[in-house]
Amino acid sequence: MTEYTLVHDAAQLVRNGDNGLDTVSGAAVAVEDGHVVAAGPTDEVVRAYPGENAVVAVDAGGKTVLPGFVDPHTHAVFAGDRADEFTDKLRGKTYQEIAAAGGGILRTVRAVREATRETLVENLLSQLDGMLAHGTTTAEVKSGYGLRPDTETKLLEAIREADDRHPIDLVPTFMGAHAVPDDWSTDDYVDHVIEDQLPVVADRGLAEFCDVFCEAGIFSVEQSRRILTAGRDYGLTPKVHAEEFERIGGAELAAELGAASADHLLEATAADAQALARADVVPVLLPGTAFALAADYADPDQFAAAGAEVAIATDFNPNCFSQSMEFAVDLACHGMRMEPGSAIRAATVGAAAAITRRDGLGRLREGHPGDLVIADVPDCEHLPYNFGVSTVETVLKAGEVVYDAR
Amino acid sequence: MTEYTLVHDAAQLVRNGDNGLDTVSGAAVAVEDGHVVAAGPTDEVVRAYPGENAVVAVDAGGKTVLPGFVDPHTHAVFAGDRADEFTDKLRGKTYQEIAAAGGGILRTVRAVREATRETLVENLLSQLDGMLAHGTTTAEVKSGYGLRPDTETKLLEAIREADDRHPIDLVPTFMGAHAVPDDWSTDDYVDHVIEDQLPVVADRGLAEFCDVFCEAGIFSVEQSRRILTAGRDYGLTPKVHAEEFERIGGAELAAELGAASADHLLEATAADAQALARADVVPVLLPGTAFALAADYADPDQFAAAGAEVAIATDFNPNCFSQSMEFAVDLACHGMRMEPGSAIRAATVGAAAAITRRDGLGRLREGHPGDLVIADVPDCEHLPYNFGVSTVETVLKAGEVVYDAR
Ligand SMILES: [Zn+2]
Ligand SMILES: [Zn+2]
Repeated sequence: MTEYTLVHDAAQLVRNGDNGLDTVSGAAVAVEDGHVVAAGPTDEVVRAYPGENAVVAVDAGGKTVLPGFVDPHTHAVFAGDRADEFTDKLRGKTYQEIAAAGGGILRTVRAVREATRETLVENLLSQLDGMLAHGTTTAEVKSGYGLRPDTETKLLEAIREADDRHPIDLVPTFMGAHAVPDDWSTDDYVDHVIEDQLPVVADRGLAEFCDVFCEAGIFSVEQSRRILTAGRDYGLTPKVHAEEFERIGGAELAAELGAASADHLLEATAADAQALARADVVPVLLPGTAFALAADYADPDQFAAAGAEVAIATDFNPNCFSQSMEFAVDLACHGMRMEPGSAIRAATVGAAAAITRRDGLGRLREGHPGDLVIADVPDCEHLPYNFGVSTVETVLKAGEVVYDAR
Repeated sequence: MTEYTLVHDAAQLVRNGDNGLDTVSGAAVAVEDGHVVAAGPTDEVVRAYPGENAVVAVDAGGKTVLPGFVDPHTHAVFAGDRADEFTDKLRGKTYQEIAAAGGGILRTVRAVREATRETLVENLLSQLDGMLAHGTTTAEVKSGYGLRPDTETKLLEAIREADDRHPIDLVPTFMGAHAVPDDWSTDDYVDHVIEDQLPVVADRGLAEFCDVFCEAGIFSVEQSRRILTAGRDYGLTPKVHAEEFERIGGAELAAELGAASADHLLEATAADAQALARADVVPVLLPGTAFALAADYADPDQFAAAGAEVAIATDFNPNCFSQSMEFAVDLACHGMRMEPGSAIRAATVGAAAAITRRDGLGRLREGHPGDLVIADVPDCEHLPYNFGVSTVETVLKAGEVVYDAR
């Protein structure tokens, strides 16, 4: 007898099809050897995988079963936090004033440089617990608070170790080009990233993606192109922080380079959306960032209209301190005005595509990863309808129960 | 030896003073017979109330202890929900189109009229569980989905029964003037509320407050005055839904009548704020409603500037489906731009004042109710900083642990 997990009698199952959610009422999922072996009406599934022979059987009566959320954009490994800057901003301080007082990204860089790798691992593990409790089963994590070869690798090693020690699968991205350290010219720092950071990261196989903060006043399109091309030569797939504050051509660059994703995109145009869709670059929208900055939201419609598979992510970082993909779905609906089904698809299939996992991650179909969330709502529409609360009750990774709030 | 509960070694304790939060680091709280008997530095508290003699001792190391949240504005008792209308609105349907198709408040009225009292009790108990998990220990609940003497009393009876059966203390408000039922003129319905609903509710002692939806196109200031004055004659303290969509004078009416609170206030002016402050009427701001409607937020500064003790609430109802006061605090900061300390005060002391509990509810000081929340954050600033997630770990009501997620 083989060993399998059975989740049965769900009020609704979201399987994700080629288009749309492909939902089933009164449904079950069976997982064996980490992969879905059956997903459909309960009576059909239990004929092949009866509950009494299951190693684990979970009654999902009245609840909704979804693919585990994929969070395709986080800066989740760091030291310290910046809660005081949050309050300062509420008191009216500007970003410039905070930076002039030693705040912002470079403050986190100082804290990371002083932290041991073990501290970074412990910090990340604690954040991953929060992410898991809100349904994330796979997450991308970027470096970028080291900005030196030793500290960028320290961050990426911490990601690798946390990946080994935590149920959430982590996908590492090298982002030496997250900010320009004090006392460097941007051009010199770009050379440093390319000549001194990238080779070490690549030689040691510490990252899968290379990302750049392509933004007016940070890294120009030309500088971003140099870094991403060099990264690609080392086998790292490009990603681009693009068109967040000003439209300078980051989206076009992402399309040109065949990036996995272009992220933020608040100032992107319809032409940018079409360029991304044509090049199969996933637009990753970050509603939590807008919420944390009290700024406008990106417009998801223009990317959908262009035919792109849209993704959403948390952008979890010290300046956007929310680990919850469940809340990203809430914000995608209430803030960005996406429909619940589109938001949930963006948090699963779309998010998986943003990290080039187009092989079934984010879908609950035969042969695909057995990562799933049981939410205490009668259907997936109720997940964002019931906003600002946790509806995630149980999370399974590769068929194993790894979080259970019941 | 007396029996007491001890919560000790909190990283931060919020006691609430006459002004401001009055925080203590490394603090403890002892509760005996439902009331705080000591709240201050751990070493001082444990001298009188040592941990080894406590009936319950909770180690709050690294965590923040706050007064239990008071939610002073909810419509938490109803039947059915309106998730489909939420999606319809995201698809672009207007409020008018939804109402014309049989949606909106009157749809919930139909569902409530058909529901048994026991169903309403069970529904409310389930919502109260969600509220408790996010730190609410006292909540106001309004009727207003009955709109007939029998169904308004059914709702108020359900509130009373749920109050008996759940740790959250409930404060009942009669709101027969929540909407005008089909086939009634507004004037006739106002007569009906005053002549046929109020006497029954008052005779049976089912409500403490009387509330009216004073809004252009719903109940005018004159109609609202008639109802609230009649309610006051029966001993029900007035509350007013005021200046939500249009400024028609609801805030002035609240001040004139000495209402406990004026709620919503999106269109209120600085003069309204001053009138409320002078009359000791608590402005209750509802950031969740703005979030759910994707509308602008109220401006808390003008009420604070007028010297009012501001309150926040969830406005939990089928059109604003969030049970969480913790999330109301997040929204007060991220959306309304309140400072964390002001938002937490508004969710405790301010909220208690909005239901005329100015005797110590919402404060953790000697002699005051032993209702407290232990949140897994190092200080209360981190509660809204870490947005969209649950930081509430343990809730105590009158010194008893009534929720524990550890
Ligand atoms: Zn980012
Ligand atoms: Zn209301």
